[in-house]
Amino acid sequence: MPETIIRYLLNRLKQMGIKDIFGVPGDFAFPINDAICDDKELHWISCCNELNAAYAADGYARINGMSALSTTFGVGELSALCGIAGSYAEHNLVFHIVGMPAMQVQEKHAIVHHTLGNGEFDQFMTMATQVVCAKTILTPENCVQEVERVIAAALEYRRPVYIAIAHNYVNENISLSTAPANVPVKSDPEVLEEAVSTIVNRLSNASKACIMPGIFVERFGLRDLTADIVSSSGLPYVTMAMDKSVLDETNPSYSGLYIGQLANPEIREFVESCDCILAIGTILFDINTGLFTAKLDKSRIINIMPSEVRIGHADYTNLKMSDVLEELVKRLYKRTDVKGPVAKLPTLPDVDANNPITADYLYASYAKFFKPDDIIIADSGTSFYGLLPVLLPEGARFYSQTLWGAIGWATPASFGAALAAPDRRVILITGEGAHQMTVQEVGQFCRYGLKPVIFVLNNQGYLIERMLSRKLDYCYNDLGQWKYHELPEVLGCSDWIMRKAVTCGDLDKIMEELENTRTGAYIEIVTPKLSAPQIMEAIHNNL
Amino acid sequence: MPETIIRYLLNRLKQMGIKDIFGVPGDFAFPINDAICDDKELHWISCCNELNAAYAADGYARINGMSALSTTFGVGELSALCGIAGSYAEHNLVFHIVGMPAMQVQEKHAIVHHTLGNGEFDQFMTMATQVVCAKTILTPENCVQEVERVIAAALEYRRPVYIAIAHNYVNENISLSTAPANVPVKSDPEVLEEAVSTIVNRLSNASKACIMPGIFVERFGLRDLTADIVSSSGLPYVTMAMDKSVLDETNPSYSGLYIGQLANPEIREFVESCDCILAIGTILFDINTGLFTAKLDKSRIINIMPSEVRIGHADYTNLKMSDVLEELVKRLYKRTDVKGPVAKLPTLPDVDANNPITADYLYASYAKFFKPDDIIIADSGTSFYGLLPVLLPEGARFYSQTLWGAIGWATPASFGAALAAPDRRVILITGEGAHQMTVQEVGQFCRYGLKPVIFVLNNQGYLIERMLSRKLDYCYNDLGQWKYHELPEVLGCSDWIMRKAVTCGDLDKIMEELENTRTGAYIEIVTPKLSAPQIMEAIHNNL
Repeated sequence: MPETIIRYLLNRLKQMGIKDIFGVPGDFAFPINDAICDDKELHWISCCNELNAAYAADGYARINGMSALSTTFGVGELSALCGIAGSYAEHNLVFHIVGMPAMQVQEKHAIVHHTLGNGEFDQFMTMATQVVCAKTILTPENCVQEVERVIAAALEYRRPVYIAIAHNYVNENISLSTAPANVPVKSDPEVLEEAVSTIVNRLSNASKACIMPGIFVERFGLRDLTADIVSSSGLPYVTMAMDKSVLDETNPSYSGLYIGQLANPEIREFVESCDCILAIGTILFDINTGLFTAKLDKSRIINIMPSEVRIGHADYTNLKMSDVLEELVKRLYKRTDVKGPVAKLPTLPDVDANNPITADYLYASYAKFFKPDDIIIADSGTSFYGLLPVLLPEGARFYSQTLWGAIGWATPASFGAALAAPDRRVILITGEGAHQMTVQEVGQFCRYGLKPVIFVLNNQGYLIERMLSRKLDYCYNDLGQWKYHELPEVLGCSDWIMRKAVTCGDLDKIMEELENTRTGAYIEIVTPKLSAPQIMEAIHNNL
Repeated sequence: MPETIIRYLLNRLKQMGIKDIFGVPGDFAFPINDAICDDKELHWISCCNELNAAYAADGYARINGMSALSTTFGVGELSALCGIAGSYAEHNLVFHIVGMPAMQVQEKHAIVHHTLGNGEFDQFMTMATQVVCAKTILTPENCVQEVERVIAAALEYRRPVYIAIAHNYVNENISLSTAPANVPVKSDPEVLEEAVSTIVNRLSNASKACIMPGIFVERFGLRDLTADIVSSSGLPYVTMAMDKSVLDETNPSYSGLYIGQLANPEIREFVESCDCILAIGTILFDINTGLFTAKLDKSRIINIMPSEVRIGHADYTNLKMSDVLEELVKRLYKRTDVKGPVAKLPTLPDVDANNPITADYLYASYAKFFKPDDIIIADSGTSFYGLLPVLLPEGARFYSQTLWGAIGWATPASFGAALAAPDRRVILITGEGAHQMTVQEVGQFCRYGLKPVIFVLNNQGYLIERMLSRKLDYCYNDLGQWKYHELPEVLGCSDWIMRKAVTCGDLDKIMEELENTRTGAYIEIVTPKLSAPQIMEAIHNNL
């Protein structure tokens, strides 16, 4: 039986494990929207707007390995661009499916709505080109070849791809054609041998060494293999900010957070005194390196990246990360002579129940609250920096958008994550400034029967920005004052627990209540305006 | 005294009449944010996110002639792109000022946050290129020349421009240099003579003629001149959808809305029987032409566009709209023999107070409610189509985003418009689907002391999309059910009137209450799920 363009595409997405498609409908995308709704194995997941949908798809991809997003032409796709760019920067695979005007409209250069009014139809794809690893406009003739080509690219790079379909082509039968044999890129065996033996030698001969697993370990599905590397090497490991929890933080080899001079002097001293650091898929950028305060000579670093290995100043290309790790795990010598610092939980400060909630008390309370297998999603801001030093229980994972750093990402991303992991507890921790950006998505949790725990920090403004600005009181860091804890009720989540904590006593009581909660929960936490976690204080003092 | 880049730029914006700058702060933009806050003659206007800020700037530009928007690098500017694209499509002048990382960071290709992680810094400007009429990266050396160049382009095309400044350059002193003499483009006198005399002849010799003033009349500040053309021609005029209220709808020469076969058969018959139609800055696209149901031979149309005149199939270029209109008004012969239909107000249907609120009753109620000089802002959707046939009082203006048609635009745009026109009543009319997209901006009205009247239509989904979809009940057109009328309270507008109307009696009572209201007002109007205005019914029946 002949197959249509949209059926071919949706079937391929389902085969790869996508069950939910996020989006906002629109007339040019209706045949796509219809096909998704008509497919009994797929769920159409409505978001309030396209940026939120893109963030939700990003959150889903982090848990599920990939996700899909459907938007309409022009207005829809451009609204999603910042989210797609974030997924590109942070290597999350999102299939972005865009409905275009009918081909005959395009060929006539007709002036229609959702365009710039100039009869041109390729400008938005041109814009997207910068933030996707492959793009295509499907036709009945090219469908099989093109879908397979962009899927291969997506799987190779773990980045978004852009797939446009003209309105009148969506339900056209595709031409019979054999899918191309997209052979996954393989490592060059000679390069592999040289790189791996160099790494083995460097690690064996180092007087002190450590491992620094990075975000690509997770993005490329290499957690178990990396854990094996750690155990067969016998070396301690540390993580940078973006890489928090890529390996379990309960592992006895874990020494804790390394963030240059901004925190943990014992860890900094240890890492910076190693003559060989094995980074595995770690991005050395400003946030990870403690705003470039990390003292890491390139000559001492090995970094196994998705398609290359950097050893000191030498780059070995044509290598796949998985091949390198697989080879390495077989050949590493186990060392028992290198000991790193022991990771420590922050202690809960001694306070009076009527005290205001300080940052120290807040983050130590979170540490107590977290359970094994929790999914913790933090928005960029002081919350992120406050949570970095908190040691997580077994199986708990911490997600943040550290490189792209678009505030507002976390609220919809946690919605996406909750859909992808319905059996795990999803905890959103966000500042109120970030939350205001994308707040409407709170309503979607209850609409889809999800029960997150949401903590919103209300400290009267963008605290991270106050700490980074030339003056603490610039008006642009002020925010409108909302009654946050009343929001879920208005947005349709009437059976949730909604609380506001102003004192340490309030917070303790609420945390206890949450232990026995089976519904969603939304907690507004009021802290003094300038109560910041220690890393933020360090950044502020280093300005 | 030497001047800095940012002072030069802000002074030029102020000279042109910009008093408020919309935006969201961010670390790469801090020196720009600081300078705006430090300027006693400028107001920093916070928005909850950048898309909303871009829409707000668009709304402000519609009233004020131009506006300014400040965002940070990457995450900020990309979030605003859909809004900027809308301003580009619809010719609203927005100065978009973007803060970039310091030049030394860019030159080193350092990997920093808010980037794609590849050490590149020009990709986002490349993306913006498609939706601005000029772009620049300011340096101390090029500042004067470049600022003047982009201002000239902005004024010429009435479209957004993109101005980026590296973090470390913002407060650098500019090189002394003379501003270039940007002479505004002038019409070619010979072409002008030929085009104008052709138009005068065509209008004099037509057996029946009419005028169709379009959106560019407003965008290029030519309302008075166009009204003079109407009166000196003696001809009746009609308007298309996007062009509603570009000239007063109380003018006795006004015949009403022309939207092809979708409504007003009397007007359609009149327009389509004219052998000469003088369009003045009208865009002939799908929405304006009643989804291409308008029967308008090109040979019968004259269209005076911003920089050209189209007479039948002939294009006359190198012409300025204002020059053409000025010449025309002197030379037109007044005709007294052409009469158009007389524009009519919709009548209020006879109902029982307990009846549900139907579309007919709702739009007739709005018609009764509107006052002279109201600013009425409608989101794309059924509300827009319902309001199109409503005749507006003197001086009242209707704003919509008809060509770009991004739903959600109206809520922030009405915030921007209210700031630009603090002495006029601003009325926002939106569907709940559109409203959910950008709802957080409701809180800004009260934060800045503005008192809009907001009507939110709650009909359980995207009604316009139901009417355009293959089936009325596709799940993607459903929405989460919010308690809309409780929202302003939670978002900080606690002294507003907040009401919910379910019956015609409720609506009457509320409309009466609003007559004497001096605070902001937010009214949720519940209608039956499928109660649509007549034009939407016509579109649905024509599918």
